Amino acid sequence: MKLKIHAPALPNIPWQPRPKGNTDLLWRYSKNPVVGRRPLPHVTGIYNSAVVPWKKGFIGVFRTEGMSRVPHLHVGRSPDGLKFTFEPKPIVLTNADPEVTRFEYAYDPRVTLIDGVYYVTWCNGYHGPTIGIAKTTDFVNFEQVENAFLPYNRNGVLFPRKVNGKYLMLSRPSDTGHTPFGDIFTSESPDLVHWGKHRHVLGKGWPWFQGTKIGAGPSPIETSEGWLLIYHAVTGTCNGFVYSISAMLLDLDQPWKVIASANQALLCPEAEYELSGFVPGVCFPVGALCDAATGRLALYYGAADTFTALCFGNVEDIVRFVKENPLQK
Amino acid sequence: MKLKIHAPALPNIPWQPRPKGNTDLLWRYSKNPVVGRRPLPHVTGIYNSAVVPWKKGFIGVFRTEGMSRVPHLHVGRSPDGLKFTFEPKPIVLTNADPEVTRFEYAYDPRVTLIDGVYYVTWCNGYHGPTIGIAKTTDFVNFEQVENAFLPYNRNGVLFPRKVNGKYLMLSRPSDTGHTPFGDIFTSESPDLVHWGKHRHVLGKGWPWFQGTKIGAGPSPIETSEGWLLIYHAVTGTCNGFVYSISAMLLDLDQPWKVIASANQALLCPEAEYELSGFVPGVCFPVGALCDAATGRLALYYGAADTFTALCFGNVEDIVRFVKENPLQK
Amino acid sequence: MKLKIHAPALPNIPWQPRPKGNTDLLWRYSKNPVVGRRPLPHVTGIYNSAVVPWKKGFIGVFRTEGMSRVPHLHVGRSPDGLKFTFEPKPIVLTNADPEVTRFEYAYDPRVTLIDGVYYVTWCNGYHGPTIGIAKTTDFVNFEQVENAFLPYNRNGVLFPRKVNGKYLMLSRPSDTGHTPFGDIFTSESPDLVHWGKHRHVLGKGWPWFQGTKIGAGPSPIETSEGWLLIYHAVTGTCNGFVYSISAMLLDLDQPWKVIASANQALLCPEAEYELSGFVPGVCFPVGALCDAATGRLALYYGAADTFTALCFGNVEDIVRFVKENPLQK
Amino acid sequence: MKLKIHAPALPNIPWQPRPKGNTDLLWRYSKNPVVGRRPLPHVTGIYNSAVVPWKKGFIGVFRTEGMSRVPHLHVGRSPDGLKFTFEPKPIVLTNADPEVTRFEYAYDPRVTLIDGVYYVTWCNGYHGPTIGIAKTTDFVNFEQVENAFLPYNRNGVLFPRKVNGKYLMLSRPSDTGHTPFGDIFTSESPDLVHWGKHRHVLGKGWPWFQGTKIGAGPSPIETSEGWLLIYHAVTGTCNGFVYSISAMLLDLDQPWKVIASANQALLCPEAEYELSGFVPGVCFPVGALCDAATGRLALYYGAADTFTALCFGNVEDIVRFVKENPLQK
Amino acid sequence: MKLKIHAPALPNIPWQPRPKGNTDLLWRYSKNPVVGRRPLPHVTGIYNSAVVPWKKGFIGVFRTEGMSRVPHLHVGRSPDGLKFTFEPKPIVLTNADPEVTRFEYAYDPRVTLIDGVYYVTWCNGYHGPTIGIAKTTDFVNFEQVENAFLPYNRNGVLFPRKVNGKYLMLSRPSDTGHTPFGDIFTSESPDLVHWGKHRHVLGKGWPWFQGTKIGAGPSPIETSEGWLLIYHAVTGTCNGFVYSISAMLLDLDQPWKVIASANQALLCPEAEYELSGFVPGVCFPVGALCDAATGRLALYYGAADTFTALCFGNVEDIVRFVKENPLQK
Amino acid sequence: MKLKIHAPALPNIPWQPRPKGNTDLLWRYSKNPVVGRRPLPHVTGIYNSAVVPWKKGFIGVFRTEGMSRVPHLHVGRSPDGLKFTFEPKPIVLTNADPEVTRFEYAYDPRVTLIDGVYYVTWCNGYHGPTIGIAKTTDFVNFEQVENAFLPYNRNGVLFPRKVNGKYLMLSRPSDTGHTPFGDIFTSESPDLVHWGKHRHVLGKGWPWFQGTKIGAGPSPIETSEGWLLIYHAVTGTCNGFVYSISAMLLDLDQPWKVIASANQALLCPEAEYELSGFVPGVCFPVGALCDAATGRLALYYGAADTFTALCFGNVEDIVRFVKENPLQK
Repeated sequence: MKLKIHAPALPNIPWQPRPKGNTDLLWRYSKNPVVGRRPLPHVTGIYNSAVVPWKKGFIGVFRTEGMSRVPHLHVGRSPDGLKFTFEPKPIVLTNADPEVTRFEYAYDPRVTLIDGVYYVTWCNGYHGPTIGIAKTTDFVNFEQVENAFLPYNRNGVLFPRKVNGKYLMLSRPSDTGHTPFGDIFTSESPDLVHWGKHRHVLGKGWPWFQGTKIGAGPSPIETSEGWLLIYHAVTGTCNGFVYSISAMLLDLDQPWKVIASANQALLCPEAEYELSGFVPGVCFPVGALCDAATGRLALYYGAADTFTALCFGNVEDIVRFVKENPLQK
Repeated sequence: MKLKIHAPALPNIPWQPRPKGNTDLLWRYSKNPVVGRRPLPHVTGIYNSAVVPWKKGFIGVFRTEGMSRVPHLHVGRSPDGLKFTFEPKPIVLTNADPEVTRFEYAYDPRVTLIDGVYYVTWCNGYHGPTIGIAKTTDFVNFEQVENAFLPYNRNGVLFPRKVNGKYLMLSRPSDTGHTPFGDIFTSESPDLVHWGKHRHVLGKGWPWFQGTKIGAGPSPIETSEGWLLIYHAVTGTCNGFVYSISAMLLDLDQPWKVIASANQALLCPEAEYELSGFVPGVCFPVGALCDAATGRLALYYGAADTFTALCFGNVEDIVRFVKENPLQK
Repeated sequence: MKLKIHAPALPNIPWQPRPKGNTDLLWRYSKNPVVGRRPLPHVTGIYNSAVVPWKKGFIGVFRTEGMSRVPHLHVGRSPDGLKFTFEPKPIVLTNADPEVTRFEYAYDPRVTLIDGVYYVTWCNGYHGPTIGIAKTTDFVNFEQVENAFLPYNRNGVLFPRKVNGKYLMLSRPSDTGHTPFGDIFTSESPDLVHWGKHRHVLGKGWPWFQGTKIGAGPSPIETSEGWLLIYHAVTGTCNGFVYSISAMLLDLDQPWKVIASANQALLCPEAEYELSGFVPGVCFPVGALCDAATGRLALYYGAADTFTALCFGNVEDIVRFVKENPLQK
Repeated sequence: MKLKIHAPALPNIPWQPRPKGNTDLLWRYSKNPVVGRRPLPHVTGIYNSAVVPWKKGFIGVFRTEGMSRVPHLHVGRSPDGLKFTFEPKPIVLTNADPEVTRFEYAYDPRVTLIDGVYYVTWCNGYHGPTIGIAKTTDFVNFEQVENAFLPYNRNGVLFPRKVNGKYLMLSRPSDTGHTPFGDIFTSESPDLVHWGKHRHVLGKGWPWFQGTKIGAGPSPIETSEGWLLIYHAVTGTCNGFVYSISAMLLDLDQPWKVIASANQALLCPEAEYELSGFVPGVCFPVGALCDAATGRLALYYGAADTFTALCFGNVEDIVRFVKENPLQK
Repeated sequence: MKLKIHAPALPNIPWQPRPKGNTDLLWRYSKNPVVGRRPLPHVTGIYNSAVVPWKKGFIGVFRTEGMSRVPHLHVGRSPDGLKFTFEPKPIVLTNADPEVTRFEYAYDPRVTLIDGVYYVTWCNGYHGPTIGIAKTTDFVNFEQVENAFLPYNRNGVLFPRKVNGKYLMLSRPSDTGHTPFGDIFTSESPDLVHWGKHRHVLGKGWPWFQGTKIGAGPSPIETSEGWLLIYHAVTGTCNGFVYSISAMLLDLDQPWKVIASANQALLCPEAEYELSGFVPGVCFPVGALCDAATGRLALYYGAADTFTALCFGNVEDIVRFVKENPLQK
Repeated sequence: MKLKIHAPALPNIPWQPRPKGNTDLLWRYSKNPVVGRRPLPHVTGIYNSAVVPWKKGFIGVFRTEGMSRVPHLHVGRSPDGLKFTFEPKPIVLTNADPEVTRFEYAYDPRVTLIDGVYYVTWCNGYHGPTIGIAKTTDFVNFEQVENAFLPYNRNGVLFPRKVNGKYLMLSRPSDTGHTPFGDIFTSESPDLVHWGKHRHVLGKGWPWFQGTKIGAGPSPIETSEGWLLIYHAVTGTCNGFVYSISAMLLDLDQPWKVIASANQALLCPEAEYELSGFVPGVCFPVGALCDAATGRLALYYGAADTFTALCFGNVEDIVRFVKENPLQK
């Protein structure tokens, strides 16, 4: 297999080679977390956040929680993808209809570049959690559009291009609380306002690492073998949920069809900053940078609902691993 | 107030005048239930079903449950709206895409006539409950279209005409089980496939009769005072849920805006066939016939998840009652 | 044993002798329920209510629920304790401090005559259920005093005289919902405002009929053998709670000490009006009339959270039964 | 198919022919319930009980509940299987080891005749529910032997002969309460004391009528087509569990292998005495009489945890129905 | 604002100035925890405990848990408020009535000096958790008085002087377990035995940091702007509760009236000793020392149900912050 | 007391003397954990595992979890009981009946030497958790025999010799999930296939450290004072379960009779590797080495469902402690 990645080269991708002797598919940045405690005054955590290339460096939309624990979205910038500075004020979202911009809470943003426009999708409070969408071209002005779905939903993630002429979004329908179930679906839209043709992609279940729920992580990466979807997988222990990271390959033209899904996690909470924090035992992947030339992957993930951490991998290795270790239904 | 009802006259509407001394807004048909035990061999209940005028009589789509308790949709016919005969086989739904017609279960159908086409909407199993849609012009051939929403949803009800040029649907997002919460929302669609611009209409809560959840009943009735929406309201007792019937008035142009919602139920489970059955304590309104000339209302409701019952009222009386006894938020 | 009852004679007590062949301690009034469906327009139930002698007849405070299902207290009157007429409007409670009379809901009233004043106690909503108290001498003017306890509490029942110079109240601390636990305690007060010296009387548990919770019924009846406390006992089935009626004897001077408590119920839901209604399976004793001269007992109890029913017994028989069939701890 | 039933003829089996027009596999006795309210003084229900032929009539072991709701086992007798008289005192169980006869509660007895000895199995309280076993030859002296299993278990049912030289028992492992799950297993024993070689027979699940749990009913009936096992199937509604009756065929030599299991219930709660009582919505089959000569089946089942009812069927019809309407896994 | 604090000067208050660059309202003692692992042999934790000035140093009542995990109250002493030594035996509580001193468990003590007497209040097991009270003048002899309230209650905290001539206590009514709700109320008493005039102060809810429950911390501090109440606020995550520290200002004369309550926490679990222990994620404030001359505040709080930690602040800063960042209802 | 231990001498037992000043009954190995992170590639944890003497060193069966989190059993070897190497492949279990070796999952193995054969018992998935058994003499070939019990069960532990001529097993019946209850029982078997004579040993409950459930740890150690059973005890906090280690003494001939059970834990989660990991707050004892000559005990326990840790103690000290600090029922 010589994998082709349909994405731009990103030579300045943040990167560390695989440590010697490490056979994991994903390995941690040695200076993790990249966003630590108190990144801003009175802010208790910046995590579950998305980073994209921007000019000569990087930019992103970040879940930011202060001492009230109500999450907001902030813009953050980095010259190298490793050190970030954050806007002290939340993003201002605009729309002519105040019902659209009515704010309850905003968390777990993804950022997807489609045809020159950056689309932010996040879990948006509107009488329950649903998927908010906004677009920007400058990360200064953000126009919010209609929520994609009825509540209750989380982890809405756009594909980086239209498929069959339609926008395509992954999401995980949920309930009103700390949902004990969750499958991944796709929905398509001609206009980013109206959504339909909902399809089931993959359900929670076997094996144990994803026994409770699963949800899409960063925007899928297009490869010659299919869309590579990195996702979070949740298992239930007697002391709560544990979030790990895994991956699946989706059909290029019918992305609701799973070519192969890994039968195990690629990264589990094992580092101190993943095991101890506001919510112990969480590795939550949200943003991925990929250098198509080398296959290098830099994956940003929330750690313990407190920190932003970074791990590395190689897209070709991951694709091969998924195909060679597929889930047997 | 002299109410105008935007609907055809229906002189053959099934009808009984209000019993003497009765001051209720809705009064029961004296020969209830209209569909009793074992309406078909091996069928344990036909209930939560919709009836519409058809030629010189009436037709409908009915939730039919056999001894497996998996609900299906059957066509039923009646010359007078009081005595029904049912097709022994479930409706056959067709679509070129087998993913659309893949059957898990089908229940609680509504039927809405829009521009000469009858649209059936129901709770359709697709990796969880969601809203199925099919159209027919002859009640023989039914073409299923895409599910309106992602799971988990129930009680999808179409408005009887486009509003602002779009199809409009009420629904109640839910979870995977016997959901202990539930608000009413609207969504709009240009094509009955893609849905968006979701708006919150009214939430569960005060007063006690709707403390657990609420959901739309029959298609709203258009009047000069607004859309009259009859809905079910659920309260939780120590021995389970109790479903009553109430009503609200919605703005004609922005139907997600509540003009007034009754501060009490109009009909509560009190009859033996409502209090005893597969699920005790259920009055679940699904189909409404209305004679615009007289304001007469014939409301079909499921009783105890076992029977189909009928009650009567007057649209003008109900609209007046709702306006004079509005919920104080 | 020749029991002495410390109460007035009540020769006009409603009464039916024990049916032939019946060996139960309590037997039902043959024309039950005494308050049936729709005792007032738009009222779905009057139940869990208290009756006391008044002039030549009887009067009482009644839990009254309309179609909103928010319970209120109404005055009802009867010439014979069998046929009742009700005030159409709720009781107006007065107090100089509006925080005291702030209304959320009011249910399950008891009425106790102490030194010429009638005290009403009920479950009063104040940021959760607690015990409201009001006093009246004419059943027209009711002065509400401070809630006896902090939330969350139900079934507050006063003793019919001061004990050791203090008012004494039974109650059942609870939680915010359909509480799955509940023991009976006493508390004492010098002034009906401040309460203390709380003592545990009896807990839920063995045997099964009281496995979930127990709570005081009518005001205790003073006898030469101790206070006779009739109480409700709740067991949990796979389909919800079942409320039965039982009795215990309390020490005259230290009423938190149980002399004997019956090892079984005296009345269980078996009649149709007890098994079918808003909450199936409920016999909830609230008001007791007693003729000290004959030992006759007329016990009013709520049936299925819908009706008011009446049963009869003999105080001496019940006291003997409790002593001869005591709970073995 | 001409079915052969390996059982004695029972010409005096209680019997009513199928009512005209009725196409059900099981039809109710027209004078149900056979054991009604208050079959003994202070006894609130005799139900979930087993009947066997005995001399010229019938005898059985009955779950008997008084006003304490603690269930005991009583012997009952009937000349015709339709009218029963009951011993007023519970069965006395004997064993040299007091740990074996230590009593907590005893319910849902089955009676199985094996090689001339009657074995009673029931749900026996021993630090949780498990399966008690006793033997008798005269229904006067009952020797209790060791509990078959560790807690927590219910619905232990013996096969009417040894299989492969071993006693064989069906059971449904459970938890400590109103268990929301339950599959059927077999276990075998050389001596009725030690049990092993546990095998899974069938699990709860699809279709809805058995979505919550299933458990064996009467002792299996041996036929030329396999063991006919009548079982209870439980579904969960928003207002609790509903218990229906269904049937499956098991392999004669390896009875843990299912030949076919009906894809629907054969009897659902529809009669008033099944829908209203201590636990509404329960048909719980426990004892079966079978006349091998005619295939007639008289099935005793508990109704609403209050009554003992009787229905009739034909073994050959049921076997054919199961084979023709099998569950598709 | 120049705040006046109605309390004695406490020049020897333990103290560290705010670290450079720190803008928090509360900052941690650099040598935390002040009571670490195994402060006594076989003791696994001393935490959630109160410290008061005593002679030239400090004394306190401490929740002490051994390997049985049953909590007891011990006296501890410190010359400087930073290093503590503990009595190896629990406090002996005396009362003539053995029902008052009957011991189940004792935890989360507060100590309040009123008119020269030290009152200890704690969560006292009496058929469920309630508020125990004892008084001492020498920390050697402790006289227990009646429990203040009926169960179920926690976090009973006395005001440091009578208000309107009555003792005043804050508390948080609860249920029998790890209560998922909780509001703060006041109650008043003429004699520390009888309590009444219960008033709701503030409820749980918005914003997220106090979404689950709230409860009073140390005795309120009297200032010219009102009573400063430091309290714990609990939020629910998918992996359990997280306890933070916040503050509100109460009216001096009607302390159940909230002048302002902070819209965020002042201290959240972020230190290793707060995030890891018997219960991860707990900062539970219990004892406050205040130097009225400087406004210095030394706040003792339990960390992770394992340690006693200390943080510092300035009363004037906190009062100002609360007023400038008030909760918007 | 001069205790006699009925076991071989084990002079090469891993050992560290009690640290100075430490008064605990069990003290940790200073280089814990003995099995740390990533003991094999892609393996996230080896824990809850058993070690026995083998030739000149030690061998064991280990719960091994990879990134799928499905647990398997692996053999591990150690020359000194401190450093281990593991087989990279799971143990292959053989049996002629494929139903016996059908694999779902396998965890928490114990190893017991009886009459020259090593018996492995573990929690084996067979339509729910139950107790698997296998035997080996070389730790290469493992013959699986029938599951001991019906589901649902965990923590099956054999005694190291027959008692009264029968194999004897401890176990903890459970439910299908993270069971919130659990008592210890014994069962006996003539042949390791059929089990009976089940006896209750000790239940969960008082005091708090074992309020939720208890379960047997390593195989009991036979002493002149009785069988020493080390067990895990679980308490419930608002943030989940905490597992500690305690001990009890059982009667030599009737091991279901408790001579004395410690009224407290001997080891609680306090080390970082016990408090942080896949499941925080777990010390789970599984394997014990004992040198009968000196009484030295080396106890292997799982830490945080991630690591294998080791602690030391002296059997005589523990036996004395249990007898001197017995649980008062």
